[in-house]
Amino acid sequence: MAKESKEGITVKKNENLSEWYNQVVQKAELADYSAVKGCMVIRPHGYAIWEKIQEYFNQVLKINNVKNAYFPLFIPESFFKKEAEHAEGFSPEVAWIENKDKDTKERLAVRPTSETVMYDSYSRWIRSWRDLPFKINQWANVVRWETKATKLFLRTREFLWQEGHCVYATEEECDKETQLWIEEYRKLSEDLLATPVLVGKKTDTEKFSGADYTLTIESIMPDGKALQAGTSHNLGQSFAKSFGISFLDENSKKQTPWQNSWGVSTRLIGGLVMLHGDDKGLVLPPRIAPIQGAIVPIFFEKTKKETLNEAKKIYNTLIKNFDIELDDREYQSAGWRFSDWELKGVPIRIELGPKDIEKQQAVLVRRDTGKKEFVKLKDVPKRFEELLEEIQDNLLNNAKEQMKSQITDVNNQKELAKAIKENKVVRMNFCGTRECEEKIKEDTSATSRCIIKKSKGNCANCSGEAKEQIYFSKSY
Amino acid sequence: MAKESKEGITVKKNENLSEWYNQVVQKAELADYSAVKGCMVIRPHGYAIWEKIQEYFNQVLKINNVKNAYFPLFIPESFFKKEAEHAEGFSPEVAWIENKDKDTKERLAVRPTSETVMYDSYSRWIRSWRDLPFKINQWANVVRWETKATKLFLRTREFLWQEGHCVYATEEECDKETQLWIEEYRKLSEDLLATPVLVGKKTDTEKFSGADYTLTIESIMPDGKALQAGTSHNLGQSFAKSFGISFLDENSKKQTPWQNSWGVSTRLIGGLVMLHGDDKGLVLPPRIAPIQGAIVPIFFEKTKKETLNEAKKIYNTLIKNFDIELDDREYQSAGWRFSDWELKGVPIRIELGPKDIEKQQAVLVRRDTGKKEFVKLKDVPKRFEELLEEIQDNLLNNAKEQMKSQITDVNNQKELAKAIKENKVVRMNFCGTRECEEKIKEDTSATSRCIIKKSKGNCANCSGEAKEQIYFSKSY
Repeated sequence: MAKESKEGITVKKNENLSEWYNQVVQKAELADYSAVKGCMVIRPHGYAIWEKIQEYFNQVLKINNVKNAYFPLFIPESFFKKEAEHAEGFSPEVAWIENKDKDTKERLAVRPTSETVMYDSYSRWIRSWRDLPFKINQWANVVRWETKATKLFLRTREFLWQEGHCVYATEEECDKETQLWIEEYRKLSEDLLATPVLVGKKTDTEKFSGADYTLTIESIMPDGKALQAGTSHNLGQSFAKSFGISFLDENSKKQTPWQNSWGVSTRLIGGLVMLHGDDKGLVLPPRIAPIQGAIVPIFFEKTKKETLNEAKKIYNTLIKNFDIELDDREYQSAGWRFSDWELKGVPIRIELGPKDIEKQQAVLVRRDTGKKEFVKLKDVPKRFEELLEEIQDNLLNNAKEQMKSQITDVNNQKELAKAIKENKVVRMNFCGTRECEEKIKEDTSATSRCIIKKSKGNCANCSGEAKEQIYFSKSY
Repeated sequence: MAKESKEGITVKKNENLSEWYNQVVQKAELADYSAVKGCMVIRPHGYAIWEKIQEYFNQVLKINNVKNAYFPLFIPESFFKKEAEHAEGFSPEVAWIENKDKDTKERLAVRPTSETVMYDSYSRWIRSWRDLPFKINQWANVVRWETKATKLFLRTREFLWQEGHCVYATEEECDKETQLWIEEYRKLSEDLLATPVLVGKKTDTEKFSGADYTLTIESIMPDGKALQAGTSHNLGQSFAKSFGISFLDENSKKQTPWQNSWGVSTRLIGGLVMLHGDDKGLVLPPRIAPIQGAIVPIFFEKTKKETLNEAKKIYNTLIKNFDIELDDREYQSAGWRFSDWELKGVPIRIELGPKDIEKQQAVLVRRDTGKKEFVKLKDVPKRFEELLEEIQDNLLNNAKEQMKSQITDVNNQKELAKAIKENKVVRMNFCGTRECEEKIKEDTSATSRCIIKKSKGNCANCSGEAKEQIYFSKSY
């Protein structure tokens, strides 16, 4: 029988992160390039990660009384232009379809985001203070016509996301929930994806087109570049005014409500891969892993049947509580199969050979550290569960330490330039002006990531009066 | 406090089915028209039904080793044209986007179905007989530029669906699984949606563009029109040849595989509404109902607190096993709230007033029959569960009887014309020729729905030699 050849990752992560990333995403079969320029195919192993994110977040939505719905893919150009700032911000990225209807020449945008098309409906649905808060989310595909090079999960012309769109009676409630959602995203990132993030407010230059302000979570990749991983926008009343959303208050007086919108996308998967992976391939935190454990029986001609039987017993026990694969591909060597599960990032590999069976044990191998443990067969379920938690914690702690080491405080232009050159994330006092922000970008290619808090002193770049403390770094 | 006014359904189902349907879909808040011509908004109550269908069908996919994935929304025109029959069939309905890339003039189609874009990837992924069967499904939005009047869920330019796309080593396996999927759709329709269907093969005129043959499930609406509710296409080897999909068999010989594709869409929701609803609004079978029971406490000033407390107790017990709402809208009359839950199709309403509490009972009201039962509080969970099953069975049985009464055998042109005029589904012997099928359509406006089995005798329409028994009817 012909053995299939399989090539592992051929570059080191710390030597060529970009090429390493491309190889891991494709060889672990998370995603693939498509013949459609700029678009990606999300393969089953990658899509299963997205489904885990959906499952987790649908629970969060439910707890917070947000209902899922679905709005049209197409947005008439006239809707798009109702909120001027919004239209201006998105126009360069919009894909238009040729309108086949003969009675109109109006172009239709393929949604880059759905504020406009959703709020048009909201204006017909919302009548009274009793309808508020009004909270809807949609899971959808969106299109933004990127012209920079495609990077699977991180920069593609189409991606999948969720977008939450809520309407509130008061400014206070809107503000509070805009913060609630960024906090939920922080939890999603840290608790589920073992990915620590910086949390803060975007500068006016970087905020969402049409928003009063934007809150963001940013994860830091091994090359020191920030990855914007989720945003929550306080839209104030501008969209409500543009789309005619109003409600009658308790005194039957007409009022304009307040709105926010918030989203995370399949980009999260890209960050996860880049942060945790190693030279052997993908490393998945157990809580997000579609396969948490792979059982690999080691076959010898004489003991094949017995080994497979024992492996099945382990499988039948573990499958009750965990996502497990039994790898019975007899036509592949044990070594090949070990490498395959490593490449695919499965948190724990369970090896089982005839000698192990004699000793009534199995070998549990951690993907994150490579550490092996010999565990009595009867103790496998308990130890397996413990190990999953240890791996999840270990990945988060390592990522936290890495992030900490990547952040550095700077006090002047020279330190700022040096730190950015060394691929650091800088934390600094900032004057908050658009001009100074633009200057930093020109000089260092770093962009503002998020405002941490109010601050005093001097701006590290222009020495003017500082208003806030902020992160700057290169970014994806 | 101002009470909100709410208008129920203002037409009788049997007087104006079309208008009745539009009102139910909109007033029960399942879906809404959008300012985007031809597109619909699926509102939370409707989307929750879709999620129930997804939940059910994801289990079926899992059992059958089909993995979910996601492929690009856009399809290059050149892909589209690789399979001539396919391209010809879909071209009139395709929406094209303006390609913003300057280095190409190739138009991109917004997917009307994904055979072409998926099989292009398949041609790179499938190598060996060990990769087969290769089974992928995607949940996605698709666009078909309908020019006929929009009908929410039934005829819209964008809809949601799942499309399964499998590749097999042998013709036999492909054939067998093409049948398996139509059988799974029959089960989904009958077991989950309480919607009986006709099952059979499409004629060559009605089959999927590019398929060897198409199997279909067709439900029959109260007006005698058939609704094509799910299809499974045996694609033979034509797409594999057009897209260069091949595999090495066990002898390392290059072979062309066999393929099928199969799908159901949000159209299922439209059929469900039209079949089961009544003059009070939506009637949902319990297994698909996002809300299975609504508890409506009846408030009087003095006993309000106690009544609400008792209602909460029932809620807390039932919510452990069922999807329940507690309707504590004090500002609406009990009658208004009863009507609201009827309109929304909730299978069981639980009424609870101070007199009921005195008697330690609640009133369970069935949505399907309107029958009331007084049930001791301690027996509510058990009776609630039983009633759900009774309602599910009753809806299916009624629908089966209705369908049976709608089908009639015809033996000649006169009977055929009369039966179609009377909005019947006809069962008849058929010669199987394209010309005869076309003639029937011209004369009666009925189209062939599906071939039941081989048959002998004379064609009911042209008196020529019959080859098969078939259903003809008007259709959506």
